[in-house]
Amino acid sequence: MTISMTPIRSFLFVPGNKASWIEKSVTADADALILDLEDSVPPAQKAEAREIVKSKLAWLFEQKQRAWVRINRSPHLYDFEDILAVVGPHLEGIVVSKPVGPEDIDTVAAMLSEAESRNGVPVGNTRVVPLLETARALQFAYEIALRDRVPAIVGATAKNADVARALDTVWSTEGRETLYLKSRVVMAARAAGKLPIGGVWQQVRDLEGLRASAERDRALGMSGELLLHPSNVPTVNEVYSPSPAQVAYYDGMIAALDAAQAEGRASCIYDGEHIDIAHVKTAREIIALARSFQG
Amino acid sequence: MTISMTPIRSFLFVPGNKASWIEKSVTADADALILDLEDSVPPAQKAEAREIVKSKLAWLFEQKQRAWVRINRSPHLYDFEDILAVVGPHLEGIVVSKPVGPEDIDTVAAMLSEAESRNGVPVGNTRVVPLLETARALQFAYEIALRDRVPAIVGATAKNADVARALDTVWSTEGRETLYLKSRVVMAARAAGKLPIGGVWQQVRDLEGLRASAERDRALGMSGELLLHPSNVPTVNEVYSPSPAQVAYYDGMIAALDAAQAEGRASCIYDGEHIDIAHVKTAREIIALARSFQG
Amino acid sequence: MTISMTPIRSFLFVPGNKASWIEKSVTADADALILDLEDSVPPAQKAEAREIVKSKLAWLFEQKQRAWVRINRSPHLYDFEDILAVVGPHLEGIVVSKPVGPEDIDTVAAMLSEAESRNGVPVGNTRVVPLLETARALQFAYEIALRDRVPAIVGATAKNADVARALDTVWSTEGRETLYLKSRVVMAARAAGKLPIGGVWQQVRDLEGLRASAERDRALGMSGELLLHPSNVPTVNEVYSPSPAQVAYYDGMIAALDAAQAEGRASCIYDGEHIDIAHVKTAREIIALARSFQG
Amino acid sequence: MTISMTPIRSFLFVPGNKASWIEKSVTADADALILDLEDSVPPAQKAEAREIVKSKLAWLFEQKQRAWVRINRSPHLYDFEDILAVVGPHLEGIVVSKPVGPEDIDTVAAMLSEAESRNGVPVGNTRVVPLLETARALQFAYEIALRDRVPAIVGATAKNADVARALDTVWSTEGRETLYLKSRVVMAARAAGKLPIGGVWQQVRDLEGLRASAERDRALGMSGELLLHPSNVPTVNEVYSPSPAQVAYYDGMIAALDAAQAEGRASCIYDGEHIDIAHVKTAREIIALARSFQG
Amino acid sequence: MTISMTPIRSFLFVPGNKASWIEKSVTADADALILDLEDSVPPAQKAEAREIVKSKLAWLFEQKQRAWVRINRSPHLYDFEDILAVVGPHLEGIVVSKPVGPEDIDTVAAMLSEAESRNGVPVGNTRVVPLLETARALQFAYEIALRDRVPAIVGATAKNADVARALDTVWSTEGRETLYLKSRVVMAARAAGKLPIGGVWQQVRDLEGLRASAERDRALGMSGELLLHPSNVPTVNEVYSPSPAQVAYYDGMIAALDAAQAEGRASCIYDGEHIDIAHVKTAREIIALARSFQG
Amino acid sequence: MTISMTPIRSFLFVPGNKASWIEKSVTADADALILDLEDSVPPAQKAEAREIVKSKLAWLFEQKQRAWVRINRSPHLYDFEDILAVVGPHLEGIVVSKPVGPEDIDTVAAMLSEAESRNGVPVGNTRVVPLLETARALQFAYEIALRDRVPAIVGATAKNADVARALDTVWSTEGRETLYLKSRVVMAARAAGKLPIGGVWQQVRDLEGLRASAERDRALGMSGELLLHPSNVPTVNEVYSPSPAQVAYYDGMIAALDAAQAEGRASCIYDGEHIDIAHVKTAREIIALARSFQG
Repeated sequence: MTISMTPIRSFLFVPGNKASWIEKSVTADADALILDLEDSVPPAQKAEAREIVKSKLAWLFEQKQRAWVRINRSPHLYDFEDILAVVGPHLEGIVVSKPVGPEDIDTVAAMLSEAESRNGVPVGNTRVVPLLETARALQFAYEIALRDRVPAIVGATAKNADVARALDTVWSTEGRETLYLKSRVVMAARAAGKLPIGGVWQQVRDLEGLRASAERDRALGMSGELLLHPSNVPTVNEVYSPSPAQVAYYDGMIAALDAAQAEGRASCIYDGEHIDIAHVKTAREIIALARSFQG
Repeated sequence: MTISMTPIRSFLFVPGNKASWIEKSVTADADALILDLEDSVPPAQKAEAREIVKSKLAWLFEQKQRAWVRINRSPHLYDFEDILAVVGPHLEGIVVSKPVGPEDIDTVAAMLSEAESRNGVPVGNTRVVPLLETARALQFAYEIALRDRVPAIVGATAKNADVARALDTVWSTEGRETLYLKSRVVMAARAAGKLPIGGVWQQVRDLEGLRASAERDRALGMSGELLLHPSNVPTVNEVYSPSPAQVAYYDGMIAALDAAQAEGRASCIYDGEHIDIAHVKTAREIIALARSFQG
Repeated sequence: MTISMTPIRSFLFVPGNKASWIEKSVTADADALILDLEDSVPPAQKAEAREIVKSKLAWLFEQKQRAWVRINRSPHLYDFEDILAVVGPHLEGIVVSKPVGPEDIDTVAAMLSEAESRNGVPVGNTRVVPLLETARALQFAYEIALRDRVPAIVGATAKNADVARALDTVWSTEGRETLYLKSRVVMAARAAGKLPIGGVWQQVRDLEGLRASAERDRALGMSGELLLHPSNVPTVNEVYSPSPAQVAYYDGMIAALDAAQAEGRASCIYDGEHIDIAHVKTAREIIALARSFQG
Repeated sequence: MTISMTPIRSFLFVPGNKASWIEKSVTADADALILDLEDSVPPAQKAEAREIVKSKLAWLFEQKQRAWVRINRSPHLYDFEDILAVVGPHLEGIVVSKPVGPEDIDTVAAMLSEAESRNGVPVGNTRVVPLLETARALQFAYEIALRDRVPAIVGATAKNADVARALDTVWSTEGRETLYLKSRVVMAARAAGKLPIGGVWQQVRDLEGLRASAERDRALGMSGELLLHPSNVPTVNEVYSPSPAQVAYYDGMIAALDAAQAEGRASCIYDGEHIDIAHVKTAREIIALARSFQG
Repeated sequence: MTISMTPIRSFLFVPGNKASWIEKSVTADADALILDLEDSVPPAQKAEAREIVKSKLAWLFEQKQRAWVRINRSPHLYDFEDILAVVGPHLEGIVVSKPVGPEDIDTVAAMLSEAESRNGVPVGNTRVVPLLETARALQFAYEIALRDRVPAIVGATAKNADVARALDTVWSTEGRETLYLKSRVVMAARAAGKLPIGGVWQQVRDLEGLRASAERDRALGMSGELLLHPSNVPTVNEVYSPSPAQVAYYDGMIAALDAAQAEGRASCIYDGEHIDIAHVKTAREIIALARSFQG
Repeated sequence: MTISMTPIRSFLFVPGNKASWIEKSVTADADALILDLEDSVPPAQKAEAREIVKSKLAWLFEQKQRAWVRINRSPHLYDFEDILAVVGPHLEGIVVSKPVGPEDIDTVAAMLSEAESRNGVPVGNTRVVPLLETARALQFAYEIALRDRVPAIVGATAKNADVARALDTVWSTEGRETLYLKSRVVMAARAAGKLPIGGVWQQVRDLEGLRASAERDRALGMSGELLLHPSNVPTVNEVYSPSPAQVAYYDGMIAALDAAQAEGRASCIYDGEHIDIAHVKTAREIIALARSFQG
């Protein structure tokens, strides 16, 4: 599997119109923030929010806080002014709501290329994480995941969210009604070499419920969760950190190749698999990632 | 989502060879009837059943009873004589068993066009609801749902039915073995802007079992159920009626645009969504539908 | 459904480097053996294992023991020398691990054609059963199942196996995390007219757990299981044998056509289906198979 | 290339309502006849023509005259009564006008299966040669050529024919305006292992023009021509007979393998190609065909 | 064939920065004008040209002059400001240069929907005629032609134009090097029920050359030509007007149905085709069009 | 257009069994050599030829002579031993005959990856140029051209070659019968950002015929030719060298951006196109290439 992006365990929404919340959110320990210009911003404050978000990106970058922006869309098109405002060297990518299908990803990619070209960023620099919230986008999850700029797709469900309206499902704690949807997103993402992201736990004060929900997502193969509140970050980071067994597996892999190299061989069999320097490079990255997660 | 057909909560089979049953069935309060020429008619009575069904369509139409006919198929072809007999201004559509794939829908559509042309009905008038009962039809559920004449697809399962034979599954009350199948039909239908229909509860006297089964289907996103007995209609109609929350949502949408228009605006934000006259038109239809369901 | 291969209820792995185990395994009553050249053989014994396996195929054939071989693959290619060594009149087919997609099946098919041509076997003779262990292979399960040489596809999961690594799932006894995967494999296989095979129960001494696991797979529509130990064969053979109800159904079908033919007709309706001599031919095969399973 | 049908150099239309013309046409030396129920039969004589054609098929078969029938189509569907009338053991296949795309071939194939089943012919027995006369059918020429029952596709053009209307081309003797169309049909047919058939020369008395036109088609790779008049058969048979060079090539191939076999080898290199018994089998068929053409 | 747009025989470019030329061009008798904001406008005058074009659209509409606008594109995106400026009730559609493939048509369609929504025009109102000037767009000509807003596609070639650079062809008067390209565009357009448009004759003073070139395009099935100079309009209008034979054909069709209706029939056979009121409606439109062309 | 390979004007076959011919061929001034292990080597010398070719690759590399190898294929598979023998740091790529379709390219790519891995070359290093000599490969020319390792595809025709047999065409000097084929290869290659290569002139002593043939291919958009004799190199190099007009165009582009940069701008309009540093980088490469050709 190509890891095309450092995984995001906790992907935390912050309203774009709240400058102080944005500032405070860097202490939440979220792997990445989503500065929201869309649903969490009242219509009257959209313009102001765009300016606030634009002004905070460099500062967040200095704090080593990975930052994304969720842009607006009309019924017809993603908001080009939002894109022009936020594309730049400090933005990791944008989050887009409700694509109708792969065509919307192509369109937003063309708009990003134009904005990158105008704003002096290398064309192709800005990533896109789509929220698969329409039935058609879910049907074409694999085709969307194959798109170049897309490092992850989101198969999130919540009690009163767009996905439930799109499929007309009835929410349950256990999630029988969305097991297919979430499993489909996981397989589509992994088949394309991309990351699947789950969520959303709306009852933000119920941390036990959050843990159970995250563990269900984790068991299905999700790599992280959308989050609505900073207090939810630690639980989710814990659920999604590489397990000691995984760390031990990769430690063992490194040791195995070291031993083989000491005997003059360039590769060896580890746990039944042929491994060589390429595998060990990946292993070192995962170990480093796990360590960075441990703080 | 395009609502391409008024939803059918209760889709009730009536044997086509029983004239009196057909007459009585209009009192069952089913959203639509399926006059069956196929499995519920003994071979010796096929010809008679065709005449009975043909003769009852106008009368049902006068009673404002939506009426469909399930036609026969040989191993090779749907029955052209059945089609020629029933196509006309009083038929809403036909139900077809066991298509092997989208090709069978194309073929039956061509036969319908011919029958419409011969019988003086506008070409394209007759709808087709396919029962996805072969593994290949289920594999191609989305492609089938995209076909023009198809307003709904059926992902029904029952203890001893064709789907179970096709996939060689073992039936359980809870339906773990068909969760994938039903979820797949829901997503395929919704992605194509069509309606998914579930069922079939064979133990027609067990109304509690029926309610539980219908609620499981409803939670997955089904919009209605195939039914085998008139006594099952009320339970299913209740489970599948728009909820008060849905009605309130659309009432609120109408009020929001009314308020905006009073201030001279053509659109507004409602519940985080841009809405205009098109949305309100849909809202009024759903409210009207909900009221009609309340009878 | 085209039955393109006599079903395999119990598909038992035997390490290819253990000549005596291979000999003993014919007493296990497994429907077919997989002589393994891959994971269960230590690297140092690969060459020896190939010779052992090669030398045992004719003997197994004489014992009427169906025999398959799992060949090795490097990260890039299936092992052509393995293929050249084992292809011949006594091999039913090969089992291939971790195809990345349908292209790998095409490649191995070309290599098999070459080996068949060199070894004097009719081109196309050797079958291929792929283990769908990568996310991409699972995404393309239907396309893989359509390939000519493929009579069955395997959607097996285990606590510490490749599939779990590919999708990053967390194993549970009940298997919620792989319900989608297994259901998808069943539908893909059946839609292509092929057989789905499940498994793998790793806790080989826990026969109750094995039975429960096999019954869950059986309910989903699987036709058999991969097995790791001869002691597991009887349980699985029992779970996957045609049920008395199935046998009765086909007995009834034969009787129905006999009766019709006695009246001078070539076909009749049986259990609501048109049947003729072709159906009865299939029925006789299934009855014969069921009887052979009864030993 | 799979030769899936004995080639037809001269494919001669005969009006289906002219019993005496049909009888006389066996003396024309055409490789196959097309008894036409469609354009060459006046509407008032359609029913009579169907009876005439039906009654002549067995007699033509006895004369060893290959016989096809062109059936009618309405704007919506091929004529099922035509199909039911002519399908039988003495019919090689049907010719169908103006398919709109591959769907029409699928539909006519289902109707043929039904007719074969009713008329006691093995299902799949009747072949279909489509005239690609709509732009969409030409766009999908390869997909049409892949269909099982289709052994050949026709890319015919004429001064005032359907193709010219479909593409709105202006006819020229040299055919610059249809070079793309004819070349496309040749490549599509050959890529699917099928035969491309050209034509139509409408100026039936201009035999020099016919020869030039046939030679242009032949150079593009066509394997035969539709013909409108018996007098055109000899010219076309001559143009499309295997050339002496081709016969010599295959004679040489047979000799080369004979020589190799005399030395105990099963294969050899002939004209730079590996050949074995399979190639020689094909060679013998082509030689036999060429000889039969020499009559 | 669906005629989805009144054909354009002469499609005349006028530089968008020349107000007086635009005014004068209504006397040129061109079927439609293309007010050009792109290549024929110097960079320094782009903004001014946009205002000029915007200001002339209503006036042209009053003159009953069909008007289109060619918008600019950067390497990444069509110009959204151009689109916002010109979309409105007086614009028939836009012409877009160098799409890379169908994705670009989807993107420009989304931008048009947004502009229509903002400018108070029904969504979907504005048409798009793409110039197929990249190799990839030509490869996907059929897929582009299928797009909803596209009523015609342009397969134009010229001595020093983009297509020649894209394919690296060498121009000749006779056009052997672009015969494939132009034929492919014709078939793709017609297969999708759309119109193919040819051109471009750059030597605008050589009217004999223009006529020969237009006649070559016309013979291939083109329906009109891009033009660079008003003096070229009459020649092209003449070449592309329906021929007397076509007019006579449709006059005959109308007469035939009139005769049938006088005898109480709703349909008849005309020139070997079933015709009814729908065909006659089309016939009347074509006759009316031909008369309007005759002025 | 992505130039994914330095173009090859003259691509000269040299028999692999003739060591002295290989040595002498470096003086022929061919852009690249094809050391042939296939058709030009007698069966008895295949093994020897493989050793000769293997031994010459490093020497050719030192001479700065670009070198490719055409490997053998059986009816089923490309020759793995050929591949293992020649893959290494001095081989630019392999030429493969008669792929049946894209699957064969996938298969040979997997074999190359394995050989690269074994021989210590970076995986993906070796390129593949396929000769499209079967009808199916020509039908799938675009799909083949999209493959990663493929920098060019060959649409060559000759009087007695495989393509003529595959399509059953009759050769003419002017090439009417292969105009579609060659044009199709050009468009497919360019649409995929790859190079189309033409040929083959078999009458190697007729240099005037060669020039005319090469100019016809060049006009269609070919970028070079397969050649059978060293004496043909100069003619072909001349025909395919960038024209003075092309050189002037790119010189002008460089000057235009220089001028713009002198005024502090990063981009400008040149010949109606937006250009920036990326375009100039390409321009410099083409100028350098043209100069190197002038040698």
